[in-house]
Amino acid sequence: MSLGTPLAPEAFVEQLREEGSRRYHDRHPYHVLMHEGKLTKLQLQAWVLNRYYYQTRIPIKDALILSKSEDPAFRRMWIRRILDHDDEDKGGLALWLRLAEGVGLDREEVASCRSVLPGVRFACDAYVELVRERSLVEAVASSLTEFFAPDLMSRRAAAWEEHYPWVDRAALEYFRSRVSRARRDSEEALDFVIRSATTRELQERCVAALVRKCEILWALLDAVYAAYVTPGWRLPESA
Amino acid sequence: MSLGTPLAPEAFVEQLREEGSRRYHDRHPYHVLMHEGKLTKLQLQAWVLNRYYYQTRIPIKDALILSKSEDPAFRRMWIRRILDHDDEDKGGLALWLRLAEGVGLDREEVASCRSVLPGVRFACDAYVELVRERSLVEAVASSLTEFFAPDLMSRRAAAWEEHYPWVDRAALEYFRSRVSRARRDSEEALDFVIRSATTRELQERCVAALVRKCEILWALLDAVYAAYVTPGWRLPESA
Repeated sequence: MSLGTPLAPEAFVEQLREEGSRRYHDRHPYHVLMHEGKLTKLQLQAWVLNRYYYQTRIPIKDALILSKSEDPAFRRMWIRRILDHDDEDKGGLALWLRLAEGVGLDREEVASCRSVLPGVRFACDAYVELVRERSLVEAVASSLTEFFAPDLMSRRAAAWEEHYPWVDRAALEYFRSRVSRARRDSEEALDFVIRSATTRELQERCVAALVRKCEILWALLDAVYAAYVTPGWRLPESA
Repeated sequence: MSLGTPLAPEAFVEQLREEGSRRYHDRHPYHVLMHEGKLTKLQLQAWVLNRYYYQTRIPIKDALILSKSEDPAFRRMWIRRILDHDDEDKGGLALWLRLAEGVGLDREEVASCRSVLPGVRFACDAYVELVRERSLVEAVASSLTEFFAPDLMSRRAAAWEEHYPWVDRAALEYFRSRVSRARRDSEEALDFVIRSATTRELQERCVAALVRKCEILWALLDAVYAAYVTPGWRLPESA
């Protein structure tokens, strides 16, 4: 690839934002149904259960990112994500399991990951492999979907309160906690990507990593949609 | 490999201790010279400079170990090693750079790793690859050289105070800090290895990983010995 001079930071950020936002999974039919209050209890539970597998991959991919950095200052910044996620009380994993209980799922069943759909597993494992195989800056760029997360999390918390009043309100804490964490995390990651992607080729590779990450999040929802909406091969006969 | 029933924990620990202690690098001629006060200033500096590269590999291999674990409780335990090592003031890397200054080296020269001997680099990179390629329990077992470290660190601090009075006393803090950290870390690691190596084959693999790690530490010193003692191809002509 010979792609000429690097984009100016503003143009590079704009390209990341553009390519990311039009592929972001807030537009997936499953999320549209969710936010319009059209999911059944079973369908909402199915999403929570399957998405938990994605949550379990996050500290693993973040540890791989840590292992790719030669810079203690970067590691001091990035390690906070793992601490945030693994904290026994307030971590992302703990809060997601509380969300699972809030929608009426059995905590151990969810934590075991034994009922996760194969397609969900493939998509999430592809994320870990992407991070393992690509360069540090590309791996960090793949995290930039977080740039779009705060808005989605805010809308989701409001939509659930309105449409799914049977869900324990306290269980929505995961979504609320992500608003500020995702904002801070994505700003740090974006700074690093802008500073590190010093050639046009690296910039293109970063955009490609973000696009692939969007495809991974989308494929996860495709698998849940196929099993629980249409063709709905996991729906009970009477649904 | 079919190796029969697993050893009882006590016998397994005894085997790890036996195979590790007889290969541990406290017996290497470079360390023997060091602790007998027979290294020149240049030779002591050479060891500090080269060993820094090993220090820089530690958080990387620990992040790889983190990435191999599916257990948040294990990760909460293991992540402390990276925090301990990367802390800006009191971390292992910061203390080692203070040691480098204490023996009269330029901090930036050491931090750059540009004068590290090729053989030292190969040995340290082999450690990262061992951790990357083997299973979690084997990777943890390879850290069990720490079991022997507290004794070596105590002897080293005393030997340096006696034989190398020109070294800034405060710079020896790294060795002192390792005594309690290595004891705690190796006990945790040993507990995990005992619990996780549930077959004779796994136990043998753990012993093999520890043996390989001892070989890595030994090879590091071989490279420094060859360059700075005999044949001494890095010694100044007049030495």
